[in-house]
Amino acid sequence: MSDFTAVDHFIENHLEDSLAELTRLCAQPSVAAQNWGLQETAQLVSEMLRKRGFRVEIMPTDGAPVVFAERAGKRKDKTLLFYDHYDVQPPEPLELWESPPFEPTLRDGKLYARGVSDNKGNLTARLLALDALLAKEDKLPCHVKFVIEGEEEIGSVHLPAFIEENRELLAADACIWEFGDVDFEEAPIQYVGLRGICYVELSVETAESDVHSGLGGSIFPNAAWRLVWALNTLKDQEERIRIPGFFDPIVPYTRRDEELLAALPDPAEEYKTRYGVKAFLKGLSGGLDLRLAEVFEPTCTICGLTSGYQGQGSKTVLPAKASAKVDFRLLPNQTPRQVIEQLRAHLDAEGFSDVEIAFLGGGPAARTDPDDPFIQLVVATAAEVYGLPMKIVPMVGGSGPNYPFVHVLGQPVATAGCGYPGSHAHAPNENIRLDLYVKHAKHVVRILKAFSEE
Amino acid sequence: MSDFTAVDHFIENHLEDSLAELTRLCAQPSVAAQNWGLQETAQLVSEMLRKRGFRVEIMPTDGAPVVFAERAGKRKDKTLLFYDHYDVQPPEPLELWESPPFEPTLRDGKLYARGVSDNKGNLTARLLALDALLAKEDKLPCHVKFVIEGEEEIGSVHLPAFIEENRELLAADACIWEFGDVDFEEAPIQYVGLRGICYVELSVETAESDVHSGLGGSIFPNAAWRLVWALNTLKDQEERIRIPGFFDPIVPYTRRDEELLAALPDPAEEYKTRYGVKAFLKGLSGGLDLRLAEVFEPTCTICGLTSGYQGQGSKTVLPAKASAKVDFRLLPNQTPRQVIEQLRAHLDAEGFSDVEIAFLGGGPAARTDPDDPFIQLVVATAAEVYGLPMKIVPMVGGSGPNYPFVHVLGQPVATAGCGYPGSHAHAPNENIRLDLYVKHAKHVVRILKAFSEE
Repeated sequence: MSDFTAVDHFIENHLEDSLAELTRLCAQPSVAAQNWGLQETAQLVSEMLRKRGFRVEIMPTDGAPVVFAERAGKRKDKTLLFYDHYDVQPPEPLELWESPPFEPTLRDGKLYARGVSDNKGNLTARLLALDALLAKEDKLPCHVKFVIEGEEEIGSVHLPAFIEENRELLAADACIWEFGDVDFEEAPIQYVGLRGICYVELSVETAESDVHSGLGGSIFPNAAWRLVWALNTLKDQEERIRIPGFFDPIVPYTRRDEELLAALPDPAEEYKTRYGVKAFLKGLSGGLDLRLAEVFEPTCTICGLTSGYQGQGSKTVLPAKASAKVDFRLLPNQTPRQVIEQLRAHLDAEGFSDVEIAFLGGGPAARTDPDDPFIQLVVATAAEVYGLPMKIVPMVGGSGPNYPFVHVLGQPVATAGCGYPGSHAHAPNENIRLDLYVKHAKHVVRILKAFSEE
Repeated sequence: MSDFTAVDHFIENHLEDSLAELTRLCAQPSVAAQNWGLQETAQLVSEMLRKRGFRVEIMPTDGAPVVFAERAGKRKDKTLLFYDHYDVQPPEPLELWESPPFEPTLRDGKLYARGVSDNKGNLTARLLALDALLAKEDKLPCHVKFVIEGEEEIGSVHLPAFIEENRELLAADACIWEFGDVDFEEAPIQYVGLRGICYVELSVETAESDVHSGLGGSIFPNAAWRLVWALNTLKDQEERIRIPGFFDPIVPYTRRDEELLAALPDPAEEYKTRYGVKAFLKGLSGGLDLRLAEVFEPTCTICGLTSGYQGQGSKTVLPAKASAKVDFRLLPNQTPRQVIEQLRAHLDAEGFSDVEIAFLGGGPAARTDPDDPFIQLVVATAAEVYGLPMKIVPMVGGSGPNYPFVHVLGQPVATAGCGYPGSHAHAPNENIRLDLYVKHAKHVVRILKAFSEE
């Protein structure tokens, strides 16, 4: 067992330097959706790693470049891979920010900036942890690699192919994921699975131009009606997804998953307060049933609808075009390709061959065994830092590119990070709490040591 | 019988002046749906009438003011009322206009601008007709009144009450309606009936804010889904309106209606070419069946859909709000109030008490007897101007506030105007043909003379 007194002091004493580095990083916009500042940020991140003795490559893809970095350690037979991303969400709506999104601002023990939580803060906290280890010894305890992409916020479009092509370079025994957080009880959380996603746009065009609704209402096809009827066949009023075969490949959750979910606090009240939702679907009121439904059911969500006149008041128009953004969250063994094929067959069978499907991105679900030794190591090392046992969440509702890490590289993937329920990731006033930033750095030190001592 | 050589020459020789006046009028935006420029346009129209010796009043309503104007004529016992409107449809989508909607532009014998056809062009053509008559004699042949409202494009919200309150002021022996046109065979058309309309906005709100779709997809209510399901209950895929009692009050069409419709040309090919529609609804292919369905069936049309993310690419959001604009076209004896009540009861019965209904405007259907002497006068005078007999259409698909004119003021209402099938009323590139503009002015001269000589 290691003694962490010295490294912990180092982390506390060098917090200011680390925040200065994080401030420089957050002051550099890197909005993937707007192709804004990605090359510059890849350079900045590379310099941060090179300064610490890493061999760094900025590797091109068909989109934003991937920064790969590695540094040998005392143990040559053990490699830990950190997955991070240097891109951030768009800062809009700007008027809701209390300080400008790209002018990092410290207020009440929190640092506010776009991307500070998701996930630039985790990256610099990890570097602070490495600094602390390197201050004590001139070598890291094991081989450390970083893969830092620039398209996470737009669906990691080119990452799966990049991983396929660089299996050897990215080889490692385990992976620390880009995010991690504490829950509203301040308990650290270990997320071992992410649902997959298949995001599509459905569109219909019934004529070359809109028609006066007085003229065409009873004789011309209406794109908005076609879209409504087509959507209605996808999911019924009782929330049952009606696409044949959709559920077939799903691997059911286990007794162990249920056990893990049952140990988590009931999120019902938190959800109601935070989002102003009066009631949950399907008569759910909270507890295990709500938790199970939340993550172990696939979804079919309308994310957006658009057709015809949407301004104030009335306009008597019969729309020639209508479209919907629809997002399916997938469970293990479902794939976006399967969903697209089933969706096409279903729409055709229901008489909606005129409804076009455009695939806007996605990837399958993936999970790491909650009882994997690496997961247990990350969980065990968290307890000392956070003063509360880390809770294991067997599956989370959101999605990310963990599939190629788990199934192509064959790595167990564990989460750790400085997020908390008030981080406002993807929203105005994104922030991190400095106390959790320090805790994340301390946790990373312990993970690296324990991993190297195994 | 009058000799029209001199007035016709006057009209032809003063076309340029009249178009200059029309250009000024169309350059002034007057979008009722956006409450844009209505007062200014009412002033502009008032000045145009005052200049011609009319006594003009700008009369307030609870919405846009009504311009009333009158001028005595040689015959004091005969009054003709012109109904026009100074408001126009919203110009959107702007990117589809070949010249800016509020910069009237002359191209190939056509004047392009928002509102130029519907119905600012008819108003100035009517004034040109009066100018021609007043150039020859210092009095108009009969008493002439204008009632020009500013809310026609949003359903004439305040006009019925205005008419109720001003029966004496608006008293007349007959009314010329705001629109009129030729068909694709260049034959002038007489529309003696207008369907009613009930325009509503349906909206649902399921939470206080949007939720990340990864979090909420399977447990949080989704406003877009609620809206889709509610709409789906209104009309089925076979185009059957499913609201109980909706059809009950309808007065069926007569043998005379059928006879008049059968005399009209088949519009099928024209519709397909003009709008790029491949097939009509309900297996209709053309002829009398298409004509009957077009105007003697009530409708339920989605005019617009809006919810969640509608930009480029994907955003994983679960919408808290969704809304649809829906327009019902009504047949004689149906009323907007009845429709709203039936719609509310239907949505409640189908489990959609959460879907709110906002009434955005409308009024019942109304018809003038196709064999009324005034209709016959307008039809007869058209033949000489257009060189083709005017065809009588017993009912038209569109709507307008003719109910209070027919049923409160007791006036026969006849249509006349400079529209044509390529006018693009309510759409980008709205335009009038100058030859038809001249013809409308000449027709109005003849109507006034014949009406005064009766």
